[in-house]
Amino acid sequence: MTMIAPPLHRRLAAEAVGTAALAAVVVGSGIRATALSPDLGVRFLANVTASALALVVLIAALGPVSGGHFNPLVSVAAWWTERHEGTGLTVRELGVYAGAQLAGAITGTGLANLMFERPFLQVSGQARDGAHLWLAEAVATGLLVLLVFGLVRTGRGRLVPAAVGLWIAAACWATSSGAFANPALTLARMFTDSYTGIAAGSVPPFLLAQLLGALVGLALLPVLFGRRSRTAPVPDDARELVTG
Amino acid sequence: MTMIAPPLHRRLAAEAVGTAALAAVVVGSGIRATALSPDLGVRFLANVTASALALVVLIAALGPVSGGHFNPLVSVAAWWTERHEGTGLTVRELGVYAGAQLAGAITGTGLANLMFERPFLQVSGQARDGAHLWLAEAVATGLLVLLVFGLVRTGRGRLVPAAVGLWIAAACWATSSGAFANPALTLARMFTDSYTGIAAGSVPPFLLAQLLGALVGLALLPVLFGRRSRTAPVPDDARELVTG
Amino acid sequence: MTMIAPPLHRRLAAEAVGTAALAAVVVGSGIRATALSPDLGVRFLANVTASALALVVLIAALGPVSGGHFNPLVSVAAWWTERHEGTGLTVRELGVYAGAQLAGAITGTGLANLMFERPFLQVSGQARDGAHLWLAEAVATGLLVLLVFGLVRTGRGRLVPAAVGLWIAAACWATSSGAFANPALTLARMFTDSYTGIAAGSVPPFLLAQLLGALVGLALLPVLFGRRSRTAPVPDDARELVTG
Amino acid sequence: MTMIAPPLHRRLAAEAVGTAALAAVVVGSGIRATALSPDLGVRFLANVTASALALVVLIAALGPVSGGHFNPLVSVAAWWTERHEGTGLTVRELGVYAGAQLAGAITGTGLANLMFERPFLQVSGQARDGAHLWLAEAVATGLLVLLVFGLVRTGRGRLVPAAVGLWIAAACWATSSGAFANPALTLARMFTDSYTGIAAGSVPPFLLAQLLGALVGLALLPVLFGRRSRTAPVPDDARELVTG
Repeated sequence: MTMIAPPLHRRLAAEAVGTAALAAVVVGSGIRATALSPDLGVRFLANVTASALALVVLIAALGPVSGGHFNPLVSVAAWWTERHEGTGLTVRELGVYAGAQLAGAITGTGLANLMFERPFLQVSGQARDGAHLWLAEAVATGLLVLLVFGLVRTGRGRLVPAAVGLWIAAACWATSSGAFANPALTLARMFTDSYTGIAAGSVPPFLLAQLLGALVGLALLPVLFGRRSRTAPVPDDARELVTG
Repeated sequence: MTMIAPPLHRRLAAEAVGTAALAAVVVGSGIRATALSPDLGVRFLANVTASALALVVLIAALGPVSGGHFNPLVSVAAWWTERHEGTGLTVRELGVYAGAQLAGAITGTGLANLMFERPFLQVSGQARDGAHLWLAEAVATGLLVLLVFGLVRTGRGRLVPAAVGLWIAAACWATSSGAFANPALTLARMFTDSYTGIAAGSVPPFLLAQLLGALVGLALLPVLFGRRSRTAPVPDDARELVTG
Repeated sequence: MTMIAPPLHRRLAAEAVGTAALAAVVVGSGIRATALSPDLGVRFLANVTASALALVVLIAALGPVSGGHFNPLVSVAAWWTERHEGTGLTVRELGVYAGAQLAGAITGTGLANLMFERPFLQVSGQARDGAHLWLAEAVATGLLVLLVFGLVRTGRGRLVPAAVGLWIAAACWATSSGAFANPALTLARMFTDSYTGIAAGSVPPFLLAQLLGALVGLALLPVLFGRRSRTAPVPDDARELVTG
Repeated sequence: MTMIAPPLHRRLAAEAVGTAALAAVVVGSGIRATALSPDLGVRFLANVTASALALVVLIAALGPVSGGHFNPLVSVAAWWTERHEGTGLTVRELGVYAGAQLAGAITGTGLANLMFERPFLQVSGQARDGAHLWLAEAVATGLLVLLVFGLVRTGRGRLVPAAVGLWIAAACWATSSGAFANPALTLARMFTDSYTGIAAGSVPPFLLAQLLGALVGLALLPVLFGRRSRTAPVPDDARELVTG
C-alpha cells in the first residue's frame, strides 16, 4: 500500500509475536498429537498441518507490518535480494530482526511447554544426526528461499503466505529431517523435551545445512527468474509482504 | 459494497443462523468422529478440521450481512475498535448480538444432539479444569482477536474468513484446552454429553480466560499495527466483513 | 464475462461430465479408502476430503459453462431465485439439466465400479433409515442452498466453488447421514455395492428430506439476505457461476 | 504480464527444478509415510496430500517462467491448444521441455532416495498391472487436461495451480492406480524401490493409457468449452501460466 515501512519497534514486535505464535503451534501441536495418537503417521500429520496453517495466517496478518519473515534466513534473503535498491532491510536491521525472531521462538516454545503443564524451558535430549538429515535441511530451505523470492520477483508477493505453508507442509513429509528450515525455530526447539525437540549437539550442522541450502536457493534465483531490471518499479504487493 | 448496514433484524438472524450452524458442526463432528475412530488423534483431527472449514464458509457467506462474528468477544472487539468512528456496533447492538449468538449456539448444539438420536439438550459431565487450560484459552483467544483486527486495520478484511479458520485449526492442536475461544460456544457446549461437551462448573474460568486473552489481543493491536489515522477512509472490504 | 449463456448442448455436456467426475470421486474414494484403512474414521476422512476437493475444482472449471450445479436441487434453486429476471434457467431447461445430472452421476458411479474391477452397475444393499438421518439431510441441504445463493445475492459468486466444498466437507462430519445433499448422487449411489452405496428402499425419504431442506434454505434466503432490488444490475460474477 | 516468454534456458531450468522438487516430494513422502504409519490409509493420505500441496506451490511459483507444466502431456496439450496462434510451444521446444522434465523427475527421485539413506537410483520391483488400472490412468489424465485447459480457455489461468492440486488429490483417492497421470514421473518412479515405485514392465501401458486419456480430454475440450474465437485476444493470465 504505502512505500513507507512502519517504525522499527513495531516491525520487531510483529516479528517477535509472530515467531512466538509459530513456535507455540509447532511445539504445542507436537505435544498434543503425541498425547492423542499411537500412530506415528497421525502424529506427524497433525503436527505438520497445524504448523503449516499457522505459518499461512501469521505471515498474511503480520506481513504488512514486518514482512512476516519469522526466520532469520528469510530476513537474510530479503536483505540480499533488495540490497541495491534502498528499499530492503539494512545489515543492522537484519541483526535485530534475527534477535527478535530468536527471542520470540524461545518464548513461544516456553509458552507451549507451560500450556501442557511442563516447565517453561526444558532441555531436549533428542539427537537428530546424519548426513542425510543435513541434505534434507538444505533441500527444504533452499527451495523455500527460491519459491518465496521467485514469487516476489515476479510481482506476486501476495501469494507468499500460502506458498510458505504449502511448501513447508510438503517438505516436512518429503524429507527425513522434517524440514525445520528455520534457524530461530531450530535453536528454540532445544528448549522442549517433547516431540519437536532437538538436542543441542545436533543443532550446529542443522544450522549450517540450512544456511548452505539458502545460499543455493539464492544462487538459483537469477538462473530461473532472471535478473531484476534496475529500472523496473517494485510491485506494491511484493514490498508489502517482504519488507513491510 | 455499501456503507449502509442491513437492518438489525437481518443481522441478528444471520448471527443466530451462523452460530447455530457452527455449533452443529463442532458438536456433530465430535459425535461422529467418536463413533468412527478408536484413535484419539484421528477423532480430534476430524473434529478440528470440520469446525475450521465451517468457520471459513459461514463467515464468508454471512459476513456481509452481520459481520460474521458468531462470537461475543469478536463483537466486543468490533465495537471497541470502531467506537470513535460511528460505523461499528453500538453498546445496545452488542447486547443483542451476544443474545442472538448464544441462542444460535444452543440451538445448533441441540440440533446436533437430535441428528445423532440424542435428546435436544443434555448435561455435560466433562470437567475441564486447570490453570494450563486457562492459559491456553487466553492465548488462543488473544491471538484470534489480534490477527482478525490486524487484518481489518490493514484494509484486508476480505482475508478474515480464511484467517479465522486457519488460526482456530492451528490453535486447537497447539493448546491443551482445544481452543474453545468463544464464550457463546463454550456455554452451549454445556448442553451436549458428548466429545465436545464441558461441565458447567468448568465454564466460568474458561470465559474469564477468554475475556482476558481478548483484552491482551486488543492491547497488542496498536503495538503491532499502530493507531488508525482518524482521517483515513475506512476500506470497503473491512466494513463489509466486520460490521456488515 | 459475457451475459450470453453458452448453447444448451454445451451446458448439458458440462453438467453430465462434471456430475460423472464427481460421482466417480465420491464412489471411487470410498472403495479405495475401505480397501486401505481398518480405521473407520480414516476411511471417512479420505472419502469426505476427496469428494470436497473434487467439488471445488469441478465447479470452478465448469461453472462458466453450465453454472456447475451437478445437483438438481441447486438447479431448482437457481431457477427459483432468478425466475423474475429472464436470466436464469427456464422450467424446460431445468428438466434437461436434471436429466443430464442423473445420467452423469450413474455413469460416474459405473466408472468407479469399473476402475476397481467391479461390474459397471451393482445393487447396493446398504439401508440408511431413520428420522435422525432425514433431519440431517434436510439440515445439510438447506444450509448448502442458503450459503450458495447468499453468496450469489451479495455479488460474490466467485466464492461458490470453495464454499460448496467447505460446507459439504463440514456437513459430512457434522451429520449422521453423511450429507448426501444431492438427489442425483443419491439415486446413483444405489448402483454401487460399496462404502458409499444406499439401498433403493432408503432413497425416497432421503430425496424428500433434501427437497424440504432446500425449500427451507430458499425461505431463509430473503430473511438473511433481503430481497433483491429489481433495478439493481446483476453482478457479472454471480451470473458467471450460477447460470453460465 | 508480458507477452514475451523468458529465454528457453530459463524455462528449461524451471521445468527441471520444478519437476525435480515434485518428484522428491512424491517419492520422499511415500518413504516417510511408510516408515511412520502401519495404517495404509494414513500412508496414502500423507503421500497424496504432500504431493498435491507441492504441485500447487510449484506451479504457482514457476508458472510465469515456464508454464509450470512438469508433465510432458501438459506440454503436449499446451502446444496443441495454441498451435494456430503463434504464442505457444513449438514442436522443438516440446521435445526439450519433455527432456528437462524427465531429467528433473529422475534427479528428484534420486534426491529423495538419498535423503532417506538409500542409493541415488534403485530399481523398483512393484508390478502395477491390470486393465482397471489403465482405465484409471486414462480417466485421471483426461480430466486433468480437460480441467486445466478449460480454465485457460475461459481466461482463468490463474486458477490452474490450485485446480491441478485439487484434481490430483481427488483422483489419487478415486482411482485404483493412484493417478500417476504424468509420463515423466511414471518413468522416474522406476528408480526407487519404495512406496511410490513402479516396475519397468508396468510402465508402458501406464504411459499409453495416460496418452489416450489426454487425447480424450483434448477432444472433449471444444465439446464443453467451445472453439476459441480466432479474433479474441488471449487473456494475459492464461499466457502467464501456460506458456510463460
